[in-house]
Amino acid sequence: MIERLCIIGVGLIGGSLALALKEAGYCRTVIGIGRSDENLQLALKKGVIDVASHDFSAVKGAGMVVLATPVGSTEKVCREIAGYLDKAAIFTDVGSVKKAVVIQVESAFGKLPPNFVPGHPIAGNENSGAGAAINDLFTGRRVLLTPAEETSENAVDKVQKMWQATGAIVETMSIEQHDRVLAATSHLPHMLAFGLVDSLAQQEESEEIFRYAAGGFRDFTRIASSDPVMWRDICLYNREALLGAMDNYQNDLAELRLAIEASDATALKSIFSRAKSARDQFVSGENSSDE
Amino acid sequence: MIERLCIIGVGLIGGSLALALKEAGYCRTVIGIGRSDENLQLALKKGVIDVASHDFSAVKGAGMVVLATPVGSTEKVCREIAGYLDKAAIFTDVGSVKKAVVIQVESAFGKLPPNFVPGHPIAGNENSGAGAAINDLFTGRRVLLTPAEETSENAVDKVQKMWQATGAIVETMSIEQHDRVLAATSHLPHMLAFGLVDSLAQQEESEEIFRYAAGGFRDFTRIASSDPVMWRDICLYNREALLGAMDNYQNDLAELRLAIEASDATALKSIFSRAKSARDQFVSGENSSDE
Repeated sequence: MIERLCIIGVGLIGGSLALALKEAGYCRTVIGIGRSDENLQLALKKGVIDVASHDFSAVKGAGMVVLATPVGSTEKVCREIAGYLDKAAIFTDVGSVKKAVVIQVESAFGKLPPNFVPGHPIAGNENSGAGAAINDLFTGRRVLLTPAEETSENAVDKVQKMWQATGAIVETMSIEQHDRVLAATSHLPHMLAFGLVDSLAQQEESEEIFRYAAGGFRDFTRIASSDPVMWRDICLYNREALLGAMDNYQNDLAELRLAIEASDATALKSIFSRAKSARDQFVSGENSSDE
Repeated sequence: MIERLCIIGVGLIGGSLALALKEAGYCRTVIGIGRSDENLQLALKKGVIDVASHDFSAVKGAGMVVLATPVGSTEKVCREIAGYLDKAAIFTDVGSVKKAVVIQVESAFGKLPPNFVPGHPIAGNENSGAGAAINDLFTGRRVLLTPAEETSENAVDKVQKMWQATGAIVETMSIEQHDRVLAATSHLPHMLAFGLVDSLAQQEESEEIFRYAAGGFRDFTRIASSDPVMWRDICLYNREALLGAMDNYQNDLAELRLAIEASDATALKSIFSRAKSARDQFVSGENSSDE
């Protein structure tokens, strides 16, 4: 149970976490800190937060502080809150990259505070802002915690319990593995979808192209409706792992292109069959983990 | 109203067409022709078809014949049915590429029959077989007809009325434009999704990769669960347009990669913002056309 929870950045993730914890009766008061007055007012009105503030001093007295701002602002936010954080306060983040977050937190505090737990809920959708917050965003989803050597076990335990209260499945892994795996499963697909939509939008026939696109295209490009600033930051802060994943993919796609160019029916059928079977297996695994 | 409708290839598309026309009271008897006994029996049991046959002579007496087999089998099937088709029978196909279909029909019959209308419903999902057939697959979806010079107006009119009876919106365009636009909106995204899943499945960490993939990945890769044989044929038969679309995309993606490599925050935000706005506009246009 968290007496005072402070969410910095009341968007889709931060707002949904607050809603889920309130619904679970796992926190009493939620303080929301943000820059946009409109968004904070909406969060108050929706009952996502109880107190709204533009002032980082509002972290004072909170037992749990959650950084839910774009990854690139981590250091700046940490410098702002450093003087106000309670000594016993646990804090954590929700960023999609972990190494860059840890470096920024370290830099802001001089050394990595033992009470800081790097975290990343593998959940979300293409919407953003407090208006997009929903109370079951994390139900049955995975949350990855990537504690550093300095991180205290007690802090990890508290953050784990908080996420479990939302219905999430919590796992820990190393910072490096996290950034590499997420580059492949999340960051790379976002690049491909953003890249495809932008590429098509710039073509002469773009109007016809979008006019005759169907459901498959809609699903494939859903992630291209995601927040541009958040994704700019992910590119900047997971640059190496993402470039590696893109190069890997480009090489494999070049092979597929060669098979098309060579009209190699056998190779094409074999690539598509392997992919279908891997994807069908992924979905059946995902469904069984939902149960 | 169609007295006897013959569906060659009772899969997702052919089966759904039969169901929709039955539901609309637009056809009396549906004859299904196919190779797999199991699939035909399933189609009979589900009420998708009334008569099942492995024999192409079953097209005899049908006023409307729909080819719904993979694109690569068009010529073979046309040669099989040529001797049995009623003189007045209208026939059409549902293939995802049109130039290659027209060439095959032409080759099978010696010249393009005026009663043949090349067609393509822009609808479908990742499922296949008669078991996947549903009666509202085409409701509010577009069907593109690409009549050739030789095609009779009467035949186009009959095929158009048939598709309209399923609730689809019918439009006509040139064969070349169809193949180019579909390469960009459908064939290319399928290659990217098949390619991504196959690329990830071959990596050492593939188990972790799929384990920590989330909803965005699920949506992005849905089309990679599509039928491998159908997609092999689309690659073989829309080769040039598809290679053009892939090269275009690879060039644009290379620019995005450069922006990531250069940590060019401005360029990244601008690419993602343009893509988000194009995609949001596509979805709002799609929704309004559903109304």
